[in-house]
Amino acid sequence: MHRATFTKPDGRELILYGRKALSAAKVEAPSPFPDPLHGNPHLRWHPLLSEWITYAAYRQDRTFLPPPEYNPLAVTLDPTHPTELPAGDWDVAVFDNRFPSLTLRSKQPPELIVPSAPAFGKCEVVVFTQDARSALGALPLDHLELVLEVWADRTEKLGDVAGIDYVLPFENRGAEVGVTLHHPHGQIYAYPVVPPVPARMQQIALEYYEAHRSGVLQDLISKELNGPRMLYRGQHAVAFVPVCARYPYEVWVAPIAPVESFADLSGNQRADLACALKTVLLKFDGLWKRPLPYLMAWYQAPTDGKPHPESHLHAEFYPPYRTPEKLKYLAGTELAAGFFAMDALPEEKARELQQIQVSLDA
Amino acid sequence: MHRATFTKPDGRELILYGRKALSAAKVEAPSPFPDPLHGNPHLRWHPLLSEWITYAAYRQDRTFLPPPEYNPLAVTLDPTHPTELPAGDWDVAVFDNRFPSLTLRSKQPPELIVPSAPAFGKCEVVVFTQDARSALGALPLDHLELVLEVWADRTEKLGDVAGIDYVLPFENRGAEVGVTLHHPHGQIYAYPVVPPVPARMQQIALEYYEAHRSGVLQDLISKELNGPRMLYRGQHAVAFVPVCARYPYEVWVAPIAPVESFADLSGNQRADLACALKTVLLKFDGLWKRPLPYLMAWYQAPTDGKPHPESHLHAEFYPPYRTPEKLKYLAGTELAAGFFAMDALPEEKARELQQIQVSLDA
Repeated sequence: MHRATFTKPDGRELILYGRKALSAAKVEAPSPFPDPLHGNPHLRWHPLLSEWITYAAYRQDRTFLPPPEYNPLAVTLDPTHPTELPAGDWDVAVFDNRFPSLTLRSKQPPELIVPSAPAFGKCEVVVFTQDARSALGALPLDHLELVLEVWADRTEKLGDVAGIDYVLPFENRGAEVGVTLHHPHGQIYAYPVVPPVPARMQQIALEYYEAHRSGVLQDLISKELNGPRMLYRGQHAVAFVPVCARYPYEVWVAPIAPVESFADLSGNQRADLACALKTVLLKFDGLWKRPLPYLMAWYQAPTDGKPHPESHLHAEFYPPYRTPEKLKYLAGTELAAGFFAMDALPEEKARELQQIQVSLDA
Repeated sequence: MHRATFTKPDGRELILYGRKALSAAKVEAPSPFPDPLHGNPHLRWHPLLSEWITYAAYRQDRTFLPPPEYNPLAVTLDPTHPTELPAGDWDVAVFDNRFPSLTLRSKQPPELIVPSAPAFGKCEVVVFTQDARSALGALPLDHLELVLEVWADRTEKLGDVAGIDYVLPFENRGAEVGVTLHHPHGQIYAYPVVPPVPARMQQIALEYYEAHRSGVLQDLISKELNGPRMLYRGQHAVAFVPVCARYPYEVWVAPIAPVESFADLSGNQRADLACALKTVLLKFDGLWKRPLPYLMAWYQAPTDGKPHPESHLHAEFYPPYRTPEKLKYLAGTELAAGFFAMDALPEEKARELQQIQVSLDA
């Protein structure tokens, strides 16, 4: 992995990554925004749920589905019309979101009737490729491995910042999940707390680990390995529809052995994880011969400086479709009660995905 | 409140409610489904989140946006083409969902690699009015009071069933939240456990109550009462955009004094709660001069037979829009992390709703 770091004219950070050494000497980091960063997001405490909500009012002005010629994630061809990214021989780029929900510069907000706090943290954009018409699953395996290394690098760097307790790389893909830019990209949120869902997962995993001296996901994977829901079974990594899927085409991708975080992956594990990831992405797009929208989230250990032997790095994919025509809406029972109702069996959905043939050499 | 109970030809229950006495003698309960109920939903345990998910494979066949002439929630005019409801002088009707995610008849499922269980519980449909073109907010106040009484009646009856620990009345309104039938109706889910979200709310409320000897929502309301986010302030009930809103147009409706459940409302409280509810619904539809979609959920005490002085009956509304054109999508940070990011301030959204004038006499 090769890396070069820059500062944009508006003060934001840009990091370019390459499989090969970067010729970064003459690169200048562009920004489509001439004015310096403004906005001051803040957190408010939800007393009924004991969780923080972040408020960033300026986000309503963010770039929304621009025509292709205004793609801010394309490389800058004309310096008088700068995008977010420079031309060059980079493969993956990371930069600070211009409209962050969390920022290291956040200040103490005014007092409210509930506790408030600076929205401390960081929101980064990860551009997976220079090719606006590509997709994560269309990238060659060594390019996907680089993406895994980028997530490792950013998790380490962000986790080292005092006050950052959790780093979540994710991708929202498709207009159906609210994506405003179609250039292949994901995001990284660095949180000042372990957020509610990973916090619950960590607590449950810790209790399980203390009782069994093994990981809850590790033990589940060992049971899934020979079951009817496997999509990819490599030497080091797996992909499967979990027995307890909450979305019809939910898929999990994980190293077989528990690995706390991206940075702890061995080269062999990373290579096989890239195969598992690419398999899933190709099966998704092969399912209905069109790009399947999804939310992809990567769970790993908190960056709170403590050991987390209970953690097991893995991705969860939530595609929003039930059938080619019907969306899975989260409504009363899911959103208000947190009790998911599924109208498809994971075994059936796994069978559909198993039947999609894919080639990793693509 | 007047009530008459029937059994449909396929074994499902139907209950008609009226503000005035019902002439139910000659009513026969229809069903559009000639065959008896089938399907056997089951629960699976999610080991990473410690929660149940329910699987009801037959739900994919459910009625989906039929043309108006096939509205199953209209009254039956031609007995050879039965709907779900009989003609008659009823105001509100409740019947068992034909495609339930939870049912009292659920049997023990086969063994899986995670714990499984019968999907014990009940899913009911609440038809708010005979008028397919009306809306909850368009109903006269005494009709809305009847709806509150119906929710009380069903909560008591369902809560009395051994093994039912929580009753959640809710309404999904609008195609944007996945509604398949536009006739004004809501649903009631009776759960075999206290589901994850109410369970967390109960736990937090209990800890607060033990520390302060007052309710967490009660104390929040007392602080909101003179604040900038109030939408309705009556003698017994309020409606407001909460300081910690997670959705741009989120609104809460509650009695001012803590009331554990619908059945504990006094007549005066219920009347004022109907005013608060109608105010919110009319403001929602007045906002952009079109029906605003929303999820409405009513939280109340668990029906586990224990006292719950920490509980405070209230509704939470989650409209899915950020602006007249833009939906609020739940994506990476909300769904995967449980950390909500808002791009609007509750004070701004409250101001918009405050400016909508409504008349409760409508």
